[in-house]
Amino acid sequence: MTDFIFQAPTKIVFGKGTENQVGQLCKEQGATKVLVHFGGQSAKKSGLLDRVCASLEKAGLPYVTLGGVVPNPRLSLVYEGIELCRKEGVDFLLPVGGGSVIDSAKAIGYGLANDFDVWDLYDHKHTATACAPIGAVLTLAAAGSEMSDSSVITKEEGGIKRGYNSDLCRCKFAVMNPELTYTLPPYQTACGATDIMMHVMERYLVNEDTMTLTDSMSEALIRTVMENASILLKEPENYKARAEIMWASSLAHNGLMNCGGPKGDWACHQLEHELGGMFDVAHGAGLAAVWGSWARYVYQEKPQRFAQFANRIFGIACQGDPKETALKGIEAMEEFYRSIGMPVNVRELGCELTEEQIATLAEKCCFGGRTIGQFRVLRQEDIREIYRMAKG
Amino acid sequence: MTDFIFQAPTKIVFGKGTENQVGQLCKEQGATKVLVHFGGQSAKKSGLLDRVCASLEKAGLPYVTLGGVVPNPRLSLVYEGIELCRKEGVDFLLPVGGGSVIDSAKAIGYGLANDFDVWDLYDHKHTATACAPIGAVLTLAAAGSEMSDSSVITKEEGGIKRGYNSDLCRCKFAVMNPELTYTLPPYQTACGATDIMMHVMERYLVNEDTMTLTDSMSEALIRTVMENASILLKEPENYKARAEIMWASSLAHNGLMNCGGPKGDWACHQLEHELGGMFDVAHGAGLAAVWGSWARYVYQEKPQRFAQFANRIFGIACQGDPKETALKGIEAMEEFYRSIGMPVNVRELGCELTEEQIATLAEKCCFGGRTIGQFRVLRQEDIREIYRMAKG
Repeated sequence: MTDFIFQAPTKIVFGKGTENQVGQLCKEQGATKVLVHFGGQSAKKSGLLDRVCASLEKAGLPYVTLGGVVPNPRLSLVYEGIELCRKEGVDFLLPVGGGSVIDSAKAIGYGLANDFDVWDLYDHKHTATACAPIGAVLTLAAAGSEMSDSSVITKEEGGIKRGYNSDLCRCKFAVMNPELTYTLPPYQTACGATDIMMHVMERYLVNEDTMTLTDSMSEALIRTVMENASILLKEPENYKARAEIMWASSLAHNGLMNCGGPKGDWACHQLEHELGGMFDVAHGAGLAAVWGSWARYVYQEKPQRFAQFANRIFGIACQGDPKETALKGIEAMEEFYRSIGMPVNVRELGCELTEEQIATLAEKCCFGGRTIGQFRVLRQEDIREIYRMAKG
Repeated sequence: MTDFIFQAPTKIVFGKGTENQVGQLCKEQGATKVLVHFGGQSAKKSGLLDRVCASLEKAGLPYVTLGGVVPNPRLSLVYEGIELCRKEGVDFLLPVGGGSVIDSAKAIGYGLANDFDVWDLYDHKHTATACAPIGAVLTLAAAGSEMSDSSVITKEEGGIKRGYNSDLCRCKFAVMNPELTYTLPPYQTACGATDIMMHVMERYLVNEDTMTLTDSMSEALIRTVMENASILLKEPENYKARAEIMWASSLAHNGLMNCGGPKGDWACHQLEHELGGMFDVAHGAGLAAVWGSWARYVYQEKPQRFAQFANRIFGIACQGDPKETALKGIEAMEEFYRSIGMPVNVRELGCELTEEQIATLAEKCCFGGRTIGQFRVLRQEDIREIYRMAKG
């Protein structure tokens, strides 16, 4: 096991109607003018945006609004947000939405607090020294951005999707009302569950010693998400199941699940980032589409780890060759993905990959000559092969 | 399940040699003069105190020291600490020790930041409005005070042991080097493991709906502590086992393990507090000595919950009457306590309880007419009966 630093200071306010506390929560953080940042029309139509604004008004807090965040949030809107906040004297960012909206707010926060082009962070040319304070009203359980140190932004020019991690952008608070996720369609619910599980699996399926406590809590989280994702496909308004998944989204990605282990593998996230940049697919579905191919390409580096996964998650008996158990576990995971309507290859994701596109994806994935992955370090030729396997 | 607020902002710096970072960590928190607070001679003899002071000196931070904290930390030393800090202009408290030392520092912190007698907090006559900032160097895995909102102080006059909980006292950072716990004798190691498990069991064995995610992480934590406590009795210098237990101590009591459930039962802690006040026994051993009697007195209120505990912790099959499964689980837990050298009644703890003492303990436990417990609400006559059952 390895040394670690863990700090996840976000104040979680979890339960029904908690969005009505948001004005008070912003005030406690010293906000004097707030940017209410959101996505499409659903937050307006559902009345959520009205409730949030009413709460700010009740707390005596002026605000401006900026909607229009899309999945794979765009750099152009981030620039627009920075300009608006500067013009309006905004000192607190309040994203109302899922990971895309929170990530967009994080990028705006970085832009406001640093004097260089914010894309330079995502392009890894600069390091952030500060970030404007952020509080989140979560409406989608998936990315875990409400408690995490990460954000992912897409630059339209060239379809480049990049992440930047720093404790500076951790939300001061997150308001989590599971009822706000009732209207999420089954496909999006399944995408969210897949993303949550993958945040843990990226940290769990690693080729280095880990802590038993972290491993066993990770297994508990994955099993809980699987159980409740299946419930939600039949009962989308099951409060408890929505709550289990929502809380899991935060714990999966706040750092708790890699205490004592390496920082994670993250190859599947990188593989999906390129797909997302090229095809604008749903993140969770993209992850499911590449995971099995990645797993089959790398598992032989340490089949015992995949065998443990098979045993603890699916109850597959560990007997004989661990490679066999490992492969059974990979199949069981794909079977689960199918059961919740997730693709297990890129064709099922709705994209027909050409050999030329595969070469482009692999090349972009290795920008600056980097490798990806930890379980097995992957170079450009490995990545091409995984995309070929995942083509379907 | 119930709504919840969760915030555990303590920065954890975990690993070998981390005590040498403590000066820098204090400085990051804005400290200008530090109280190094500790217990007996072991921190001096081991050289730990020298390393801590050298780190403060390297960071250019002046400090004063105050040793002498004992298990069941005393109010008189807290008063002494407050006076010393006021005289010396201390603005940051650095306990170097286990839960007793950290709790003593928390009480000093409350005393420094409030203008009433600090005992009034523990006597529940006042509410704290502030607490001086605290960072901890942990040398004992047990109480979880390094990440929790609680502290427990004993007033010598009358042997009254009382707790006070508030987010204000949460440590700004905690430095956790598992190697510092190598020299802990087997009995103290077992006491610590018992305390850690009990912090989770107090939250788990409740008579109200909980979250599956919290339940399953709690089970993971209890099983991990059991496994590693057994290892440590044979291999006291097993780094990984020390690390598992140390990290478990923080997660058991930082609030994570009752998200979505009630605040916990806590009757066993209250029963032990009175024993600790009267006999000055080791906290963990006192908990083990009363738990089985408490469990047998209350389990029929909701035997399914104890049956789940039996099944998930000990693999006892849930078939037939859940009461039978529940009782098997209680027996299995006592058997585990015995296996690590913990008492399962008060006689084994080394105290012969008289009927008069039982009456006194029960009376003090119900000060101000309060009841204790949540799984089953316990009145004075119930408490007397549990002490009688636990007498041995």
